[in-house]
Order: sequence, then structure tokens, then C-alpha cells
Amino acid sequence: MTTNIFISSAGAMDKPVTIVDQGSFFAGGTVIQAEGNRDFYKPTKPEGQTLHGDHAYVFYQKPQNAHKYPLVFLHGAGQSSKTWETTPDGRDGFQNIFLSKGYSVYLVDQPRRGKAGQSTVAGNISAQPNDQLWYDNFRLGKYPNLYKDVQFPKDQESLNQFFRQMTPDTGAYDKDIISDAVAKVFDKSGDGILITHSQGGEPGWFTAIKTDKIKAIVAYEPGSGFIFPEGEEPEPIQTTSPFGALKANTIPLKDFMKLTKIPIVIYYGDNIATEPTDEWNKDNWRIRLQMARLWAEAINRHGGDAEVVYLPDLNIRGNTHFMFADLNNKDIANLMEAWLKEKSLDK
Amino acid sequence: MTTNIFISSAGAMDKPVTIVDQGSFFAGGTVIQAEGNRDFYKPTKPEGQTLHGDHAYVFYQKPQNAHKYPLVFLHGAGQSSKTWETTPDGRDGFQNIFLSKGYSVYLVDQPRRGKAGQSTVAGNISAQPNDQLWYDNFRLGKYPNLYKDVQFPKDQESLNQFFRQMTPDTGAYDKDIISDAVAKVFDKSGDGILITHSQGGEPGWFTAIKTDKIKAIVAYEPGSGFIFPEGEEPEPIQTTSPFGALKANTIPLKDFMKLTKIPIVIYYGDNIATEPTDEWNKDNWRIRLQMARLWAEAINRHGGDAEVVYLPDLNIRGNTHFMFADLNNKDIANLMEAWLKEKSLDK
Repeated sequence: MTTNIFISSAGAMDKPVTIVDQGSFFAGGTVIQAEGNRDFYKPTKPEGQTLHGDHAYVFYQKPQNAHKYPLVFLHGAGQSSKTWETTPDGRDGFQNIFLSKGYSVYLVDQPRRGKAGQSTVAGNISAQPNDQLWYDNFRLGKYPNLYKDVQFPKDQESLNQFFRQMTPDTGAYDKDIISDAVAKVFDKSGDGILITHSQGGEPGWFTAIKTDKIKAIVAYEPGSGFIFPEGEEPEPIQTTSPFGALKANTIPLKDFMKLTKIPIVIYYGDNIATEPTDEWNKDNWRIRLQMARLWAEAINRHGGDAEVVYLPDLNIRGNTHFMFADLNNKDIANLMEAWLKEKSLDK
Repeated sequence: MTTNIFISSAGAMDKPVTIVDQGSFFAGGTVIQAEGNRDFYKPTKPEGQTLHGDHAYVFYQKPQNAHKYPLVFLHGAGQSSKTWETTPDGRDGFQNIFLSKGYSVYLVDQPRRGKAGQSTVAGNISAQPNDQLWYDNFRLGKYPNLYKDVQFPKDQESLNQFFRQMTPDTGAYDKDIISDAVAKVFDKSGDGILITHSQGGEPGWFTAIKTDKIKAIVAYEPGSGFIFPEGEEPEPIQTTSPFGALKANTIPLKDFMKLTKIPIVIYYGDNIATEPTDEWNKDNWRIRLQMARLWAEAINRHGGDAEVVYLPDLNIRGNTHFMFADLNNKDIANLMEAWLKEKSLDK
């Protein structure tokens, strides 16, 4: 990889990267068919016609002399693979940062989202304004005020770009459909590392149960879908968050045990409450961090290797729900890379 | 650019390309706000909240020593920027082909499509099966039979990938919203060439009226939205196609004249009827090709430079509605590059 410095108009891509392969494909999905017989001369009648949907969309890039394991990125709720691309203020996101570090990157749009929009079930798109709900819940601050020293840019255009990253579900969220498709992504990528964000955490766990090609999971602020062995689930955790109490889900022990065979690291950022509070957004993440710690205990109790990293414990301050795009996202990337090295997954 | 050959697993990217910059951004769009006052403690209530939507999403890549003018690609109906990426059978699409030729490429998802899914108007997603409608209308053949010698791969997985490229509108198609946003894309890309496909043709013409940064337009099989000076529009052209008679639209002459200031080339493929026929898919494109020729005559009558290329006239046979992804898409790319050279736009 060449090292001469290039300053881009958009501020993205610190240095040139030689790409030996890039492309896109669809993985998984289903096919439905309407009853009756197709008539060529009645082309708009559904009778007998098929519909292909519920697949994942993937854009991948392979740099020269890539590390052994590709990184497969799965976004969170209301987001697409844009999550991992250029940051709202035009800096490199994890896509470019890890390409520059020599990793192959696979960016996924989950079924019924983004460029994988074709759903086999009908859906409604709401245009109900909710920017401020996300601004607060993603812990940029308490709208319109950013938290003091938060790792989010202060200019209006960055906030404009951030809000526009949201893109709606074109069909119901379904963890089984998503994990089925993401497992198929690994059939194409080969053995690799799964990196999830927020809502992507839940299908991420189920994907690792469905395929043995996942060698490790890095989960950024998983928000729900923590799965415990039947009979070992903790009580629901109450909160002032409008999203309600956080309930633990259960799966058969034999499935849970598959998650004890690979290293897992979970990261949470700053401005998360340590005690119950009516600041609902900070409380929303208090219960999720608490559940993540209980879940990691269960994994390790069964012989696994799960670690929950609360960034302020490392004196890394001010991170939002999107730490991988925050102002200090290169530090966040280095932290992840150091963990991969520690687990000998950076070959 | 290095020239050593690399054979990729997916069959994409003939040779490595050194990328000096790549990234993504949103362009244009609007903001709506619900009446009333936001209450932090009622976060899910819309009152006072905003919604950012109706923007375009763009992923761009700049190769080393790029040509002067970037290529900005706008997809057609039911498609996303995937249209220009890896072909259904895993070969390089125009994104990789023109990167390899040294052009910067900007791939657009139009407002209310793909990763630009957030719409400011509510919408419904239908899951009505219609694969065969598109198979026939896009002139792969007469389902389930491919046309003899059609430039589309014969294997089932390629057809599976092709069907999955369709992705729904998340809000009503609006040529004005799309052309407003694409004009903003050129504010970021700078002076460049606009390449459109099918339905993208209509907002393409309007974009060139709204910005002087478009130096040429290459339109692949524009299907509608041919705009004539008021009083010069031809009669609607009748067809057996379920999409109905093709009507010419009108605009003020002073707007039309802007389209006479830049070179324009329009390409149509094979299996298009030359006489009215009840083979509705071939007839559907007969009237569009006919209208395109009338439109080019109007442009040239007013001193412009518009050319309609019907590929069989060049003895290039078997092309579908997606000629830039067909088996002979490198020939199609070379044809476009030769045209750019002829117009001195390949500097």
C-alpha cells in the first residue's frame, strides 16, 4: 500500500489504497409466488409471478496484501451500511480506516433496508418527524445542546448529514431473516470477523449460531436481543426510557454454547447513567450496559470469552452511540485492532 | 495504475486500482417539522420534531491521475446505484470499468430509494409479485425463455441476482425532488458527465436545466419524460404496452435551450419492435425509441448536439434494457468512452 499523503476535497481517505477487488452482491433471501398462471399478455397481473426479496446487499473491497480475516459490518436500527462510511463531518469511517489498515471490508445492508429494500411482506413508510428522538437517544446531547465535550462535530452541516443517515425499514424487522442472510454473506466472504452496531447485535448473535465462519464478534452498543440459556435469564431491567423495560431472551443451551467458542468484545461509550434517572436517554443505555455485563458473565460462566468495555473506564470520554464515527474514531479503531491482535485475529 | 492481473473470487475487478479518495455523502433534501413544541420527556411524540428527507445518497471513488470530468451515475425505476456495480453474473459493472479507465465515479441513490430512503411523505411498500413483468419489459426475453443470443447470462444464479436488484420507492417518485438533489450532487463533484438509465432520464434532463456543471449527458434507454418546447410537442404515441401511450411533456423554450448547450447521446439496445406489435415489451420500447428520435431532432433543430444510437445499427446485437451490465458491457463502455473522446470530454 502506498504511503504518500493525499488531502481529499471531502476530507475522506487519508492516503491512497490499492484495491485488488471490489464489488457487490445479494446474499440469502427468499422467493414468493402468486397463485395462478402467468399470462404474458396481462403483464401487470400478479397471477403466477414471483418476487425475490428478504436478501442482504453487500459491497466489499479487498486491499492489496489483505489480512487473513475480512471484516463484515452490520449496521443498527434505522441505518444502512452508510453507518460505516464517511463520517457526518467528512472524515474516514471504519470502511476507509480498516481498508487503510489492510483489512478486506464487507458492508452489509440488512434485508428490508437500504439497497436490500425488496421485502416479501408489504410495509408502510412513516414520515413522522423524530430527529430529536434519535439525537437524544444516540447521546449526542439533549437537543438542541450537544453534551459538553461530546465527540460529535459542532457544525450544522455535520448534524444535517447525521440525520440523513436514517433510512426506513421497507418491511418488518426480523432477526431470523437478517441472520439467515448474513450467514450467507459469510459463505461469500469466507471466515471472518463480524462487527455489529446497536440493533445489529441481536441478529449478529444468531448469525454466529448459524455459521461457523464467524471467528469473532465486535459489538458496538448492542441495544437488545441479549440471549441467555433457558432458565438462566435475568429479570427484566426497568427504565424511564420510552423503549421500556429490557427483557432477556432465551435460547437452548446447545445454541448458546456456540457463542462460547469465539472471542466477543462489546463496547459502550460515554454519557450513560450509572444510577436510575429521568434523563431517559442516559437511562436507556444504563440498562443495556447492565444487561450486556450480565450476558458476558453468562458467556464466561460457560467457558466463553466475552468482554464488555465501558470506554470511560479507559479514560476515553465523550463518545456517542456512533463511536466508530465520532471525532476520536481512529482511537476507537485502534482499540478494536489491538483487541484483534490480542486474540491473534490480525494475521 | 498498476496493470498486474488479479482474478477475483467474485470475478469482479480485472486489475487493481489505486484509489486516492472515496467516501459518501447526502446531497440536497428538505426538512419538515411537526407543529407544537418538543418535550424531551415525551420523546416519541412528533410535536416540534423535525425530519430530514428527500436527499440523494452518493458513494464516490477517485482513482490516481483521474480524468478531468467525473462520471455521475443515476439509476432507473425500481433500481438503486447497484445498477452500475457488479453485474448479475459477477463481472465488472460500469463502476469498476470506468475506475479502471481512470475516471472518478459518483454513484447516486435518488431521493426515496436505496440508502436515500428517508422520505418526507409517507408511502406504502407493495410486495406484489412482478418479477416476470420486469424480465419481459427489460427484454431479457419472453419469460421463462431468454431471447436467442441475448447478452444476458443463462445461469439461474445470475437471474436471481438480477431480480434482487429491484428495490422499492419509499415515497412517491418526484422528478423535481430528484433533479434538485442531483444538481446538488454536482456542487460536490464539480463539473462532470451525467449518465442516466431509463426512468433516470427524465430527472437527468431537468438536472441539466438546473445546473451548468453538467458538461454532457449519456442516457441509456430513457423511458419517458421527453421534454419539448411548448407548442413543439409531438402527438402521443400509442402502444400495446401496459404502460400506455407515451405522451411528450413541454417546458418553456428558454429552459429547453439549456439542453442544446451540451452534447447528449442516447443508446437503445436490441429486441425493440420496428412496427406495432402485440409483443407488448418490444412495442413498449418501440415508442420510446421513436420519441427519443423526435426529441433529438428538436434539440438539433434548435442548434443542439443530440444523437440517438440504436445498437443494432452498429451491428451490436442482443442487448437488454441493462446494456451496461450485459455480457458485452465492455464494448458498451468503450462505445461511451469513444463518444467522450469525440466530444473532447476525456481530458
